Amino acid sequence: MSSSRPALGVGMVGYAFMGRVHSQAWRSVGAFFDLPVTPVMAVLSGRSARTADAAATLGWAAVENDWKELIRREDVHIVDICTPGDSHAEIAVAALEAGKHVLCEKPLANTVAEAEAMVAAAGQAAARGVRSMVAFNYRRVPAVALARQMVADGRLGEIRHVRAQYLQDWITDPEFPLVWRLQKDKAGSGALGDIGSHIVDTAQFVTGQNLTGVSALTETFIRERPLAGDSAGLAAGADGTGRGEVTVDDAALFIGRLSGGGLASFEATRFAAGRKNALRLEINGSLGSLAFDFEAMNELWFHDHTLPAGDAGFRRILVTESDHPYAAAWWPPGHGLGYEHTFTHEVKDFLEALAAGTDPTPSFADGLRVQRVLRAVEESAANDSRWTAITG
Amino acid sequence: MSSSRPALGVGMVGYAFMGRVHSQAWRSVGAFFDLPVTPVMAVLSGRSARTADAAATLGWAAVENDWKELIRREDVHIVDICTPGDSHAEIAVAALEAGKHVLCEKPLANTVAEAEAMVAAAGQAAARGVRSMVAFNYRRVPAVALARQMVADGRLGEIRHVRAQYLQDWITDPEFPLVWRLQKDKAGSGALGDIGSHIVDTAQFVTGQNLTGVSALTETFIRERPLAGDSAGLAAGADGTGRGEVTVDDAALFIGRLSGGGLASFEATRFAAGRKNALRLEINGSLGSLAFDFEAMNELWFHDHTLPAGDAGFRRILVTESDHPYAAAWWPPGHGLGYEHTFTHEVKDFLEALAAGTDPTPSFADGLRVQRVLRAVEESAANDSRWTAITG
Amino acid sequence: MSSSRPALGVGMVGYAFMGRVHSQAWRSVGAFFDLPVTPVMAVLSGRSARTADAAATLGWAAVENDWKELIRREDVHIVDICTPGDSHAEIAVAALEAGKHVLCEKPLANTVAEAEAMVAAAGQAAARGVRSMVAFNYRRVPAVALARQMVADGRLGEIRHVRAQYLQDWITDPEFPLVWRLQKDKAGSGALGDIGSHIVDTAQFVTGQNLTGVSALTETFIRERPLAGDSAGLAAGADGTGRGEVTVDDAALFIGRLSGGGLASFEATRFAAGRKNALRLEINGSLGSLAFDFEAMNELWFHDHTLPAGDAGFRRILVTESDHPYAAAWWPPGHGLGYEHTFTHEVKDFLEALAAGTDPTPSFADGLRVQRVLRAVEESAANDSRWTAITG
Amino acid sequence: MSSSRPALGVGMVGYAFMGRVHSQAWRSVGAFFDLPVTPVMAVLSGRSARTADAAATLGWAAVENDWKELIRREDVHIVDICTPGDSHAEIAVAALEAGKHVLCEKPLANTVAEAEAMVAAAGQAAARGVRSMVAFNYRRVPAVALARQMVADGRLGEIRHVRAQYLQDWITDPEFPLVWRLQKDKAGSGALGDIGSHIVDTAQFVTGQNLTGVSALTETFIRERPLAGDSAGLAAGADGTGRGEVTVDDAALFIGRLSGGGLASFEATRFAAGRKNALRLEINGSLGSLAFDFEAMNELWFHDHTLPAGDAGFRRILVTESDHPYAAAWWPPGHGLGYEHTFTHEVKDFLEALAAGTDPTPSFADGLRVQRVLRAVEESAANDSRWTAITG
Repeated sequence: MSSSRPALGVGMVGYAFMGRVHSQAWRSVGAFFDLPVTPVMAVLSGRSARTADAAATLGWAAVENDWKELIRREDVHIVDICTPGDSHAEIAVAALEAGKHVLCEKPLANTVAEAEAMVAAAGQAAARGVRSMVAFNYRRVPAVALARQMVADGRLGEIRHVRAQYLQDWITDPEFPLVWRLQKDKAGSGALGDIGSHIVDTAQFVTGQNLTGVSALTETFIRERPLAGDSAGLAAGADGTGRGEVTVDDAALFIGRLSGGGLASFEATRFAAGRKNALRLEINGSLGSLAFDFEAMNELWFHDHTLPAGDAGFRRILVTESDHPYAAAWWPPGHGLGYEHTFTHEVKDFLEALAAGTDPTPSFADGLRVQRVLRAVEESAANDSRWTAITG
Repeated sequence: MSSSRPALGVGMVGYAFMGRVHSQAWRSVGAFFDLPVTPVMAVLSGRSARTADAAATLGWAAVENDWKELIRREDVHIVDICTPGDSHAEIAVAALEAGKHVLCEKPLANTVAEAEAMVAAAGQAAARGVRSMVAFNYRRVPAVALARQMVADGRLGEIRHVRAQYLQDWITDPEFPLVWRLQKDKAGSGALGDIGSHIVDTAQFVTGQNLTGVSALTETFIRERPLAGDSAGLAAGADGTGRGEVTVDDAALFIGRLSGGGLASFEATRFAAGRKNALRLEINGSLGSLAFDFEAMNELWFHDHTLPAGDAGFRRILVTESDHPYAAAWWPPGHGLGYEHTFTHEVKDFLEALAAGTDPTPSFADGLRVQRVLRAVEESAANDSRWTAITG
Repeated sequence: MSSSRPALGVGMVGYAFMGRVHSQAWRSVGAFFDLPVTPVMAVLSGRSARTADAAATLGWAAVENDWKELIRREDVHIVDICTPGDSHAEIAVAALEAGKHVLCEKPLANTVAEAEAMVAAAGQAAARGVRSMVAFNYRRVPAVALARQMVADGRLGEIRHVRAQYLQDWITDPEFPLVWRLQKDKAGSGALGDIGSHIVDTAQFVTGQNLTGVSALTETFIRERPLAGDSAGLAAGADGTGRGEVTVDDAALFIGRLSGGGLASFEATRFAAGRKNALRLEINGSLGSLAFDFEAMNELWFHDHTLPAGDAGFRRILVTESDHPYAAAWWPPGHGLGYEHTFTHEVKDFLEALAAGTDPTPSFADGLRVQRVLRAVEESAANDSRWTAITG
Repeated sequence: MSSSRPALGVGMVGYAFMGRVHSQAWRSVGAFFDLPVTPVMAVLSGRSARTADAAATLGWAAVENDWKELIRREDVHIVDICTPGDSHAEIAVAALEAGKHVLCEKPLANTVAEAEAMVAAAGQAAARGVRSMVAFNYRRVPAVALARQMVADGRLGEIRHVRAQYLQDWITDPEFPLVWRLQKDKAGSGALGDIGSHIVDTAQFVTGQNLTGVSALTETFIRERPLAGDSAGLAAGADGTGRGEVTVDDAALFIGRLSGGGLASFEATRFAAGRKNALRLEINGSLGSLAFDFEAMNELWFHDHTLPAGDAGFRRILVTESDHPYAAAWWPPGHGLGYEHTFTHEVKDFLEALAAGTDPTPSFADGLRVQRVLRAVEESAANDSRWTAITG
């Protein structure tokens, strides 16, 4: 990276799981992509005494104990929000009003109302050249980006079916503790918001279509759990002080229709024993089909239905060729990427949009669209699974 | 097989796809299983002039042009019904009343009312020692039977999720003709009854639980097709005389709850390009998970969640070991079976039940239970996807 | 099948594993294929008192205790040899001289000398219109036949690599008894002749090329085993009377060159724990690659290297389409076949050749070619792995 | 990382493919692992005018045009050699003599003589507390490290078979240019040294055994290629100035014996169309088997042969659990790693050994052991594939 390229200071709020992976993205992006701007890891904000240690480990130059201070700093041009969903709206709106570009973790917010306020703030900010983006990182899996290209190129024809699942198993054990992701006030919802939001966004992104309505079921299998002590990533231990109520869904199933006339099914659960991070998407079209599973993230399976039947079948495309999305920046074919690369690609695209003066995607409006689907799911589930249109 | 074992004459009605595979089952079963009775391929009934040729090819000793004649024959002890669903009730009830054991292809009937009449007739017949069975052959895939055993043995613990799909693609092309399977008067319903019935039965069989209610969507993507000429299996050509209306569903999606508290999703479609006969079932329990796909029918995937996490993963059990269901009768490990073997196993179990004087399963009551799920699906789909309890 | 078609009586010698599967082939072939001749399961020959029971179970009309009597019978036109390799030459030569067509199990013989005598007899017989064939059944796996077609059609370009393995695990346990397959006088060799012969034939068949030379290693891991009692298929128990020496190889590895300039590697073993019947073949050519594993026998994996790199990958062709070899006779797409079908295809092709008056393949000469490779492997292994040309 | 930990300056020689990935390792390691020392990316050495740009992009603080200058610098404590094999010996010996710890890319050298000199220098250096390591990075794939643990824990019992392949396809096209990797003077050998060395080391590492001898074939399919222009990673273009001779092997096959009595086969090729970076290892033991393919690098397949046969099968262990090697440092289960992480793990282990004052592995002696296998392969291939013992 050339020193003649403008430097943009980044301030990150939160440094747990998402903060660690965002840090790796900011740290690495410039070594692999020829960026128009140079990101500088300027400030880390966190409330605990451990923030300074975290900053040293993760490579942030300075520390603030209050995100409001971080937003005020002149050396911060970008605010990267890695906190739980309950604080997204407040931080993002404040940052945008302060003229800072915002990259906000998903889900955009815990409620549609918050998300609407964020979209309004993003709109006003954009008029002033201040940009915003919601971090649905799975759009930047090379295989998912390739899937989007193939659909857009017409390789699938008319979309008939979408089959989306996000299967994990980390709370299968009833004694797994009551971490913040299982508390409605912090997480907004359970599997639905945390991982269901990803498959809704991914399905809409890849198909280029929106869900028009849903019928849904949700369930909380384990209604009480031990109170939680420390956690790291998705792991945690009980703190031995008693038990508390699980106030979110353990699993959400919904079926719906796409704006192009296809049918879609979705399932988000943390009770699929043996499935660790199985974000799966299968799309069947009139001319072909695609299948993806994040547990084998470097592979995209494609069936070309225009081939002679005797010659056709799902082919495993290793998405590591130089003409695949993002892949030329990395290693030779067959030398796969990992989870964190999706974030490196995300900040790369974000920085390019900032430099180009364009709106990065997914926008806050995209995040709101997902939020409205989640709301419709909850409404349908609470209303006898009745068909619930996605409005707005 | 010893000649001292009683011979039972079989009369088969219909000799298309199902008739061919049932014939192979009757022809082969005695060479592999040590049966208590000896089936004799006595009579084939069909309406066309080709029936005699079919009987010669398929190995039936005699021919009747009218199934009512077949039922009357003294050399027929078992009536095997391989016709489309619209004639099942009439033939089965008549046969049972005539004192013939009945093996009836699925779905049991085209309507719940017909199925109820059949169950009533089966009950009266059973009182007289006359047996009946509905031919959900996929229960006799060794891997599916093994799955049932493993669930019954408690290897999965509490069932949290069932994910059932039956994906085919043979009518993806809008110019595929209007075969009988696409006509409501003959087939009753489309993908729902033809293949959806299989996954409902298989899921209920393997879990040992019933669906208590559903919320559903159905769709007919292609509403008009060329009129059909001859067909064979699932293949067919247009006859060039015009177009007709598709009066059944092309696809059905539904979500539901199991009697044990788990959630289930179902999808039946003939529009999944590249999926040929993908009857898929995944079950997640508190202690383990199972996954199956008929396209690899000799494999059952099992995740043992009681193993240390670092040592666990889905294992591919080749269901060809001598202690696997049905497998000892066939070949050494790794020498797989095919589609037709499920029918051979079916008639083997049927004959053993006849000899033992017990009721074979799946019973007509099991078939009715499936039929009630299908009706609830159609009702929900017609009623804003509203939750529809499975009654009766 | 029309009664106007000439009937050909079949006499089968031996009724263990191979006899059971051949019987199923003879029993089934006419129901699925429109044959020019009608095979009649006339006579079964065996030395034990159980032969009559076996004939009843397997569907043979008559019994002879001596194969020489079987050969003399006028109602026998075809002799099907299903005995161990040490008797092949004697029976086959006698049958051919008696004017009977011969289908002989593989390996053709236990020595090159025997095989040469059989080829000579076959040549003399052919001059009189009497046909012979060696039963390398894996050529008739639809996926293998399709692979052959694709190579012949030039889809792979120049063959660079063949990677052939036949992996089983049924003698991994040192206490597995000393069955006839582990005794040199009966079996000729161990893994090499039993399963190595299959991969040599399959590789030569699919590529259309011959091995020109090899360098080899063989090993006997367990040199002494309990004496064997009864066996069935590949299963057996010890008889408790002591231990005996294993006189064949447990595993054979060899590398070689193909007549077209490619390199090939072969491995045959019964000590590959967890691999049950993994006959695997991968071929890499300048224009594409193929991969096959019999444990998933309905699948052929094809990589089309002429596609753009970004779009290419190994595709899983389910070899169940109506234009695939043999598949139209059976079931709709995705409804797979099993092990025994390869034998049904074999007798179908054999009968068609008889009717057409042509020489069926693989011929005894093909069997001899395999035998010469096996001999070269043993010579190389005994001679410091030195390069050993395949002659003759 | 705490500032109280001693800083160690790193000087890297070469910045092509290996230099880029090593840079990412040095850049990232401290953010994920709690290191006893702090690596500082001090100096990059390269001969071209682009070195300064590379240093800026890759994050190196200073630049030297001559590696001899780099070795002299006091701020360099570690020399990381990322050049082609022909310069390894000279640089490594000089660096060790200058008291610098050395991390050297593989293969250790282009000849056994060079490797022996390096081992001698490493021995003398070690006596002075100066450490050395050869960068067989695949040992640090978590799945490979887990495989090693499982073998060492006795999970496989006695090793019967090793099946190792390294399959690539990047020179399948005869018009792919004559890059340095195809020139004997620079690369030493072709597929054999470049990728064959990896599978030899990986097989010996995982089994904990050495190869005692080999029998080999090598081949150069395309003997002349266009002269090369610029290259990046494994991609390159022709420079239009003519054609030159390929002086290395395109493929190498060899079979051998392990010190524990098992048989092993190896294949290294760049002509396996459709295989991109398929480093594959399968090991069969008396108690279990393991299978690995780098194209799915987060998966290890394990068959536990001590389970009941009816319950056993190859299980797919996603090697992302917190108790798997290296995995706790990264992301939650199912969130996979990529190629570059193997290098991050490598420098982590290297730094820990430096801090602990122990010899890191693989040592130069391990590298020499691989080199001797490669020499034996070449000798056998040149000598009629005769058995060639691995000496020394």
